[in-house]
Amino acid sequence: MTKAADFAPGPSQLFFTIEDHTRKAFREGFPSISHRSKEFQHTYQRTVANLRQLMAVPDHFHIAFTTSASEVWERSIQSLVIENCLHLVNGAFSKKFFETALQQKKKATKIEVPPGKGFEPIVTANEPELIALTHNETSTGVAMPLTYLANVRAQFPNALIIVDAVSSVPYPAFNFDHIDSVFFSVQKGFGMPAGLGVWIYNNRCVEKAKEVQAVGVNAGSYHSLLSLHEFTLKNQTPATPNMLAIYTLGYVAEDFLNRGIHIIRKETEYKSVLLYQTLQHHSLLKPFVEDGAWRSPTVIIAHCGEHTETVRKRLEAQGLYPGDGYGELKKTQLRFANFPAHSKEQYELLVDVLGGIK
Amino acid sequence: MTKAADFAPGPSQLFFTIEDHTRKAFREGFPSISHRSKEFQHTYQRTVANLRQLMAVPDHFHIAFTTSASEVWERSIQSLVIENCLHLVNGAFSKKFFETALQQKKKATKIEVPPGKGFEPIVTANEPELIALTHNETSTGVAMPLTYLANVRAQFPNALIIVDAVSSVPYPAFNFDHIDSVFFSVQKGFGMPAGLGVWIYNNRCVEKAKEVQAVGVNAGSYHSLLSLHEFTLKNQTPATPNMLAIYTLGYVAEDFLNRGIHIIRKETEYKSVLLYQTLQHHSLLKPFVEDGAWRSPTVIIAHCGEHTETVRKRLEAQGLYPGDGYGELKKTQLRFANFPAHSKEQYELLVDVLGGIK
Repeated sequence: MTKAADFAPGPSQLFFTIEDHTRKAFREGFPSISHRSKEFQHTYQRTVANLRQLMAVPDHFHIAFTTSASEVWERSIQSLVIENCLHLVNGAFSKKFFETALQQKKKATKIEVPPGKGFEPIVTANEPELIALTHNETSTGVAMPLTYLANVRAQFPNALIIVDAVSSVPYPAFNFDHIDSVFFSVQKGFGMPAGLGVWIYNNRCVEKAKEVQAVGVNAGSYHSLLSLHEFTLKNQTPATPNMLAIYTLGYVAEDFLNRGIHIIRKETEYKSVLLYQTLQHHSLLKPFVEDGAWRSPTVIIAHCGEHTETVRKRLEAQGLYPGDGYGELKKTQLRFANFPAHSKEQYELLVDVLGGIK
Repeated sequence: MTKAADFAPGPSQLFFTIEDHTRKAFREGFPSISHRSKEFQHTYQRTVANLRQLMAVPDHFHIAFTTSASEVWERSIQSLVIENCLHLVNGAFSKKFFETALQQKKKATKIEVPPGKGFEPIVTANEPELIALTHNETSTGVAMPLTYLANVRAQFPNALIIVDAVSSVPYPAFNFDHIDSVFFSVQKGFGMPAGLGVWIYNNRCVEKAKEVQAVGVNAGSYHSLLSLHEFTLKNQTPATPNMLAIYTLGYVAEDFLNRGIHIIRKETEYKSVLLYQTLQHHSLLKPFVEDGAWRSPTVIIAHCGEHTETVRKRLEAQGLYPGDGYGELKKTQLRFANFPAHSKEQYELLVDVLGGIK
């Protein structure tokens, strides 16, 4: 069966312009130019400028490129923590972020809630150096309301607040007063082939990284925050990067800008409401996340229980490919990415088919 | 002027099949499949198998993928050194490898010779834990003879011998009895877009990495050697990788196998001899590396002195684009990559044009 739609949450369905942009890059000979050339610097600058506009990133925040979001878990802890950090954990990916801090020999503490749940206000004796938040937990479909980020900021004015937004960007309209850093990868909301991470961080992060360096903590090498920062200021990367992905990302961000980020957000909400309502009124299925305020608009998880395989087969017969539940939840859940690459028509077909399963 | 040939040593001229392989990947929907799927594992396995055959990698060596060769500088030091390592430095890239070890807070020592020179036998009081060798110094066009590697092995049976072969693979026929690890990136000899590193390492490296972990040294996190190794054993990567590059590399390696690695080596030597002879007999130019035994066949550096800009213009007028000299040497040198992507015809045209400059 040809895939009419691929709802796996990443690597996800490609945004429809990706192949054209890639072809254009080859036509221009872009993959062969030097990563130290003016031509590459222009491309880099264009990509950063488009991302900045798309996400309304203020001037005192910078944008650098890593090789994945997993890399930012490591680099942020290495570069920004002398001693301790606090992690909010509610699924597999927020847990890995926490474990990365332990592997880096930091005094990492966690506040953990069961998969599918949101968090209460943070209770902790001391203000940590860094608070690691996962805005959208891809494994469980829980998204942090933006008001929660505002509250964390109000409660912890001094800690660096670092946000993993791998599977929610470009949907959330982050208030950059409430966070110090946010990062994501391109194979989710940007609908691109995998192999690039984007790290947005403010001057407070740069200052903290200098402090970490000054006390002699091992902050990595070529991809430490200070090294990435030094190079991004000249529109370059420390090592030869995935140039093709930096090129493509700039054009996809431009596509999103041309469409209008407010329209993309409205469409995301429309598709999200459509699917959650279908799940809520379904006789066999239900949304996995119970609390509506913490339901992710961009990664929607259906609890299908014993019907999981039936539902999958019925969807696949129509060319609709759901994502597996994560890890052990594979047997009882299906995941549906709701990214800009997923059209309203695909979602309308999806809820039609789901509605017909009784 | 359309580029008839691009001799920059990386990112370099694309191998002529790359765009077709990329198009095929898009047609198959490969960029959207899960990096945890059986389909991806098959691709991974195919790429590893083709590389293994191409480079005659023995069974007790493993192949993992990183994001660049620069990353392997860092990961190898993190994962394989408890205390000390020794670096042979003769240019910008071998120097960066050394500096990476210092940044990782290791007791790193170096034996340094001027750019363009080879090394004498190593003299050192103690056998280091790890010896870092740069087989082909891309900045200066010096290549280590394979007999030198054999001698280092004979002198240091216990140290791990780690070889940066970024800009020489697939040309050298390494004897894997003489080394413990070799690594490279794909935008040089494989003529691919940048964004993937290949790390080949033996069981001794794995055992040493376990020892490093056991003593509590911080060996990184998701891309430590042990983490990469755990995942490569199941044909996967710890994080979502540059899947498209892993896919393409497998097919390029197959293209090389179909052509025959012995033919590729013969052609590399033919083109190399052609250019070095032209430089040696030239009235205005000469090979930068004086000692023939240490001249790189794959990155050939012409000392052009005050004629550098003239030579560049004359070449570019014929569509032949040389690489800049590295760093400060930009004003007096031109670099010529001699990779499988560079045809005999391109080299014949190159020496014709050079010969006409008097």
